[in-house]
Amino acid sequence: MADSFSYDSLFSENSTDTPLNFVKHAKYDFAVAYPAPETLPMDGLIQALQTAVDSDGERIASEMAYYPHQFGAQELREYTVQKLQNDRGFTVDPDEVALTNGSGEALGLVIQALTNPGDVVLAEEFVYMGTLNQLRRFGADIRGVAIDEGGIVPEAMEKQIEELIANGEKPKYLYTIPEHQNPTGSTLSEERRKAILEIAHKYNMPILEDDCYVDLRYAGDVQPSFRALDDSGIVVYVASYSKLLAPGLRLGYFTGAPELMRRAMSFKLGSGPNQFASIAIEGFLKNNLDSHRGNFNPLLKEKCDAMTGALEEHFGGSGATWSTPEGGCYVWLTMPEGSDISAIRDAVFEQGVGYVAGTNFEADASGRIGHNSARLCFAYESPQKNREGIALLAQLFKQHGVM
Amino acid sequence: MADSFSYDSLFSENSTDTPLNFVKHAKYDFAVAYPAPETLPMDGLIQALQTAVDSDGERIASEMAYYPHQFGAQELREYTVQKLQNDRGFTVDPDEVALTNGSGEALGLVIQALTNPGDVVLAEEFVYMGTLNQLRRFGADIRGVAIDEGGIVPEAMEKQIEELIANGEKPKYLYTIPEHQNPTGSTLSEERRKAILEIAHKYNMPILEDDCYVDLRYAGDVQPSFRALDDSGIVVYVASYSKLLAPGLRLGYFTGAPELMRRAMSFKLGSGPNQFASIAIEGFLKNNLDSHRGNFNPLLKEKCDAMTGALEEHFGGSGATWSTPEGGCYVWLTMPEGSDISAIRDAVFEQGVGYVAGTNFEADASGRIGHNSARLCFAYESPQKNREGIALLAQLFKQHGVM
Repeated sequence: MADSFSYDSLFSENSTDTPLNFVKHAKYDFAVAYPAPETLPMDGLIQALQTAVDSDGERIASEMAYYPHQFGAQELREYTVQKLQNDRGFTVDPDEVALTNGSGEALGLVIQALTNPGDVVLAEEFVYMGTLNQLRRFGADIRGVAIDEGGIVPEAMEKQIEELIANGEKPKYLYTIPEHQNPTGSTLSEERRKAILEIAHKYNMPILEDDCYVDLRYAGDVQPSFRALDDSGIVVYVASYSKLLAPGLRLGYFTGAPELMRRAMSFKLGSGPNQFASIAIEGFLKNNLDSHRGNFNPLLKEKCDAMTGALEEHFGGSGATWSTPEGGCYVWLTMPEGSDISAIRDAVFEQGVGYVAGTNFEADASGRIGHNSARLCFAYESPQKNREGIALLAQLFKQHGVM
Repeated sequence: MADSFSYDSLFSENSTDTPLNFVKHAKYDFAVAYPAPETLPMDGLIQALQTAVDSDGERIASEMAYYPHQFGAQELREYTVQKLQNDRGFTVDPDEVALTNGSGEALGLVIQALTNPGDVVLAEEFVYMGTLNQLRRFGADIRGVAIDEGGIVPEAMEKQIEELIANGEKPKYLYTIPEHQNPTGSTLSEERRKAILEIAHKYNMPILEDDCYVDLRYAGDVQPSFRALDDSGIVVYVASYSKLLAPGLRLGYFTGAPELMRRAMSFKLGSGPNQFASIAIEGFLKNNLDSHRGNFNPLLKEKCDAMTGALEEHFGGSGATWSTPEGGCYVWLTMPEGSDISAIRDAVFEQGVGYVAGTNFEADASGRIGHNSARLCFAYESPQKNREGIALLAQLFKQHGVM
């Protein structure tokens, strides 16, 4: 029986033979999407677990043995409610918050609850490719909404909706990252959010709000979440502990109208999210949120300043522009119209600088935009490496004739 | 905007408004599917995390910050390979093992890779309802295979396959729990496994082997896994650390033919499994697997003996029969033909004894079998509570006129 069994004709029609992805790091890695590993509070998380076991071992043992609630650990849901109230200005019940395996799972569940193949879905014209991949997998026909340095332009979005409706393509919902957007770094103002909500109600179009960067602000003022501005149920709010603490904890969450949440949960594979990580997160953050953010965000700012300073030094006067984010992880670099930095991405990676080309974030995948832009993650490398890497990037761009 | 937003006509056709499940415990809870919470090695897991951080903090920080490999933490995959070699007698490469959010996720991914709506899938006529639910969700037309106290009867299965083929319903694959089966507690002999493999090859039918109870053996001899008996790729092997350590760690895994694994992974929502739990599990088990099993399994045996002893005392001579498992978590109780203990399940629960009625495990959901049977989990309650609960169950069965 050592012959190789053939799966010909046995795979499902929905399955695809997708090559596996392995993370490779360039010497200067601005392609990653992760915050500073040096701020990861592993000792604090471990201490929090130990404290929980020492103070309430029986509860911990029973929570680890089964899932009392399909939405995940009660204490972390209660903590999350408190955090949403303090940080995001809206109040929900712990039974209206579902913990998930990272926010990626939450997004995937909501997308499945709302998307029939062929449904038109709106998103920023450049937006997080992980969500784009999920939208595409479940058959969404994604259309990019025009953005400027302040995010979605409401008037342009309404005009586009009218045109889509005239064409028999009424959009089903809007996906947006309103705070420190991935990849552009922009934050939507309260005024624009209110205008977008009005449009959403007018066209009966839910808003899937991805607020996963909200904790990573080191400048300017946080804007109210869509969810805080509207409690009608039209907003589905998704967020995460991955960026604040560590992606390896795999803990995200979402809250929305009760029926929407039941529909979304009907797509869940397997049981609830990790109780072990939930206990550690709740125990750590309830005592250390402010001090952790107090360590974390100044470091982010230092890293961002190092990168934008180096951009000024090495790209100033070249016709390139870049965003100046107030938080998050990303600077959005735009080279002059006509330069193609997506085509040289692999070569530049081999020469030492990693970035993600703008084409990867193009919502409608039309190949129309993004060739002259790149997402640069400033959060992962040290300030020094940010400076060195940007200097090398300028040199390589010149060598490849795009600058 | 405080009016309630209506999702009418917005939900996807695939979504269902499924009521959420909350775990409720009867006084004597034989309905759960979890092993002994008193053996959960929380201190050991925490210690393992601390040791990893102290000895190799930089590696841990980078693993927590991103996912170097789509299949999950390298060290736990390497450990799993070693464990499979030692305990299950087959050798795979760490790059052929994917860690998942519990074995439930692994099963869901493989099911999606292999199932088109309407495909006929075989499974033991009574089998784990979690997998049945996933199979149904992805459109499988499940047919139950005849079992006896030794599990699947190969000759009966082959006859059934021939009949299905004659009827234009060739089965696509077989799902089975060969070791300490859920719910019946049976273990398939090596001879039967070999016969089933021969049938599987003859009919070009992969075997989805769910080996999640293999670590929980306290009597008799472990049987070779299907995967150890066949390395052609026809076997997809799924297992878990949930039963050995704790479900709340959410760590399962699977291994199979490379293309099958890529197809399965294409259905994954979000990033890899929990690195935090992976680090703890690997660190704990590499030093403590034998001592942990040495504590765990004698306690399981004591609990099982308490339950079967009480069954002998209170159900002996009533016409009831029950399995005598060599491991796992479950005793399968069968009342005389014609008794309906599924109808009184809720009433008995309210009166203090929880069990899962056999009808819930019926593979083809025809309502044909299972009314007179129940799964009793002996692993969760103490030996004393097992004895008391079975005594009460006999009393309640008499009261309800089924004994």
